[in-house]
Amino acid sequence: MKNMLPKGYLFSTVEAAVKKPGRQDIALIVSAVEADMAGTFTTNTVKAAPVKLCIRKIASGTGQAIVVNSGNANACTGQQGMKDAREMVSIVSKEAGLDQDLVYISSTGVIGTPLPMERIRQPLKTLAKKIGTATLDEVAATIMTTDTFPKVVHKKLKICGVSGTISGICKGAGMIAPNMATMLCFILTDFAVDRKTLGAVLKSAVNRSFNRITIDGDMSTNDTVMMMANGLAGNEPINAKAPDLAKFQKALDEITYELAELVVKDGEGATKLVEVLVKGARNEKDAEKAAFAVANSSLVKTAIYGNDANWGRIICAVGYSGISFKEEKADIYFNKVKVVKDGLANNKDKEATAELKSKKIRITVDLKSGKAEAKVLTCDLTEEYIRINAEYRT
Amino acid sequence: MKNMLPKGYLFSTVEAAVKKPGRQDIALIVSAVEADMAGTFTTNTVKAAPVKLCIRKIASGTGQAIVVNSGNANACTGQQGMKDAREMVSIVSKEAGLDQDLVYISSTGVIGTPLPMERIRQPLKTLAKKIGTATLDEVAATIMTTDTFPKVVHKKLKICGVSGTISGICKGAGMIAPNMATMLCFILTDFAVDRKTLGAVLKSAVNRSFNRITIDGDMSTNDTVMMMANGLAGNEPINAKAPDLAKFQKALDEITYELAELVVKDGEGATKLVEVLVKGARNEKDAEKAAFAVANSSLVKTAIYGNDANWGRIICAVGYSGISFKEEKADIYFNKVKVVKDGLANNKDKEATAELKSKKIRITVDLKSGKAEAKVLTCDLTEEYIRINAEYRT
Repeated sequence: MKNMLPKGYLFSTVEAAVKKPGRQDIALIVSAVEADMAGTFTTNTVKAAPVKLCIRKIASGTGQAIVVNSGNANACTGQQGMKDAREMVSIVSKEAGLDQDLVYISSTGVIGTPLPMERIRQPLKTLAKKIGTATLDEVAATIMTTDTFPKVVHKKLKICGVSGTISGICKGAGMIAPNMATMLCFILTDFAVDRKTLGAVLKSAVNRSFNRITIDGDMSTNDTVMMMANGLAGNEPINAKAPDLAKFQKALDEITYELAELVVKDGEGATKLVEVLVKGARNEKDAEKAAFAVANSSLVKTAIYGNDANWGRIICAVGYSGISFKEEKADIYFNKVKVVKDGLANNKDKEATAELKSKKIRITVDLKSGKAEAKVLTCDLTEEYIRINAEYRT
Repeated sequence: MKNMLPKGYLFSTVEAAVKKPGRQDIALIVSAVEADMAGTFTTNTVKAAPVKLCIRKIASGTGQAIVVNSGNANACTGQQGMKDAREMVSIVSKEAGLDQDLVYISSTGVIGTPLPMERIRQPLKTLAKKIGTATLDEVAATIMTTDTFPKVVHKKLKICGVSGTISGICKGAGMIAPNMATMLCFILTDFAVDRKTLGAVLKSAVNRSFNRITIDGDMSTNDTVMMMANGLAGNEPINAKAPDLAKFQKALDEITYELAELVVKDGEGATKLVEVLVKGARNEKDAEKAAFAVANSSLVKTAIYGNDANWGRIICAVGYSGISFKEEKADIYFNKVKVVKDGLANNKDKEATAELKSKKIRITVDLKSGKAEAKVLTCDLTEEYIRINAEYRT
């Protein structure tokens, strides 16, 4: 829906057979005017070439275009990888008539194989020339790897009386799919946002969404979230003191949370979405640690898949999470069914088993030791995950 | 083989239908004389009642008997669980004519369900009366949960000219099987070992064996390793200055490593044993962290299962392990095939794929940044693991 989009963003996609022919695999996002820009990137020590390049570029806080390819992550490719990433930026900026510093790059796909530059150069030129011929939905489809559906979310809102839009796209599936890698997310808005504020709101939104999901506990070499704010809505730039800052933050939080939820729903082989809420913790760090231990437990995830209200595995995971807590205080729920009361079986296994048949399950662990809480999203672990990930890189 | 056993240990087993009838499910180990005793236990904050009880008892450094049941972990069972554990000890010590303080207890099985004491009391009396009627192999079979074979290892050696034996049994499978829990290991020797030295050699052996294995990254509420040394071999007690201390340590190391290897081989659904060796690290802690990150990665484990020499997942796991290292220095091998040289693909995928068809695979990561190394044992991740763990607790 074109009318849902923020003003001044144009798109194109092209087929370059980065990995193999038969699909659009490079996309370009261009803002009509220079935009403020913020980003967060993988904390993995091993970073792909495009990630290293973007980390340097984003220090400027401005940008105008993002070129993204699927099929090859350009990770573990050494100096050649860095050279290739720079060349991609150079070709696009030249053809599009943009300053090189304003063009960003993301890659996702197989690790350790150099980009097939000989197949990419010509399509990159076409991509820049074709700008405006694709939709954001098509861009979202182009950046998919093992994703089974494109992920796009829009929010319209008013900031100080001025209407504008925030749109987000992302790709996910396994944190690293068979050959591929990575969670990529691009957020575009026509609201004007003060540069420093943009970084802060993005960081806050990512911390409670993408940083709180886990498919298999692996963290990719290419994870990237970038946001562009081109100001074409015409509002007064949102800064730290803006009356509608909270409203903007809330809309952005919703977008990143919804995208994160879509990533988990589309986790490799997943049949169920699982929300792990740890509350009553002494502090948020403890709550997060415990929630991640539960969400990353293969035993918890297979039990959910098998409709087994096996709360012993949950309390056991909290036990090895490294937080200190009193077992005899803990309550555990599957949705609203309390299966553990004060650390002991509450004899509600039958009711809990019935709850587990739903497609979205909330596990709540109440430590009753404080007021902090944290929520982590994950999915169940199935035979299909094994099949997808055990297949040879084809 | 009776002649393989250390002197002075007697065994019995009994069927108590702890979980369900049809198998021997409680075992008793008794030393003819009071023995020195050491133990290491789960670091999970949630500890089963028998673990809590043993931690208190073992402070004395002496013992004479261990009673072990499978089918129920007596974990998350509150004060009732503690009462039941004490009663089991009390029945056995009374019937066997032993001081209560000298009788230890271990449990493995379903979490959160109280022990069926009404079914256990009479068999416990029988168990004590029958002492000497079972073999150590039968004890090893009695303590199995989802294990597919009993695990027993013996070593005969001479210490200062005196012949003696160390025997070890254990059970493992998933760190927590469907309903059940736990790695349990019992080591018996007729050598005399100074009490303090016994604790030290056991700790050292466990740190390089059981503490370096992972099936699914989960850590149980009941994990226990206990060792008895009754001195009936007649040697001078081995102390910190004994000339043959290193020899004794080596034999014990071999026993715990072989048992740990058996546990991993018998990992739920496992088809391959995987040894992850990280070397060239700046210190052992770093090497251990990196090796565990690789060994716990679902993506690495499914790739091994699928015969996919996907080294990108290995370097990626090292990258998120939290250690600092230089990607451009790292080499990676599957067995002896070097797939990564100085952080880049070495174009040996075909040779590596062939290696992956063997039943035992060694992944070596050489960080070339120091002299420390660590080895972690794990297994592949298969559809069968999911099936075993997704089944409802029956």
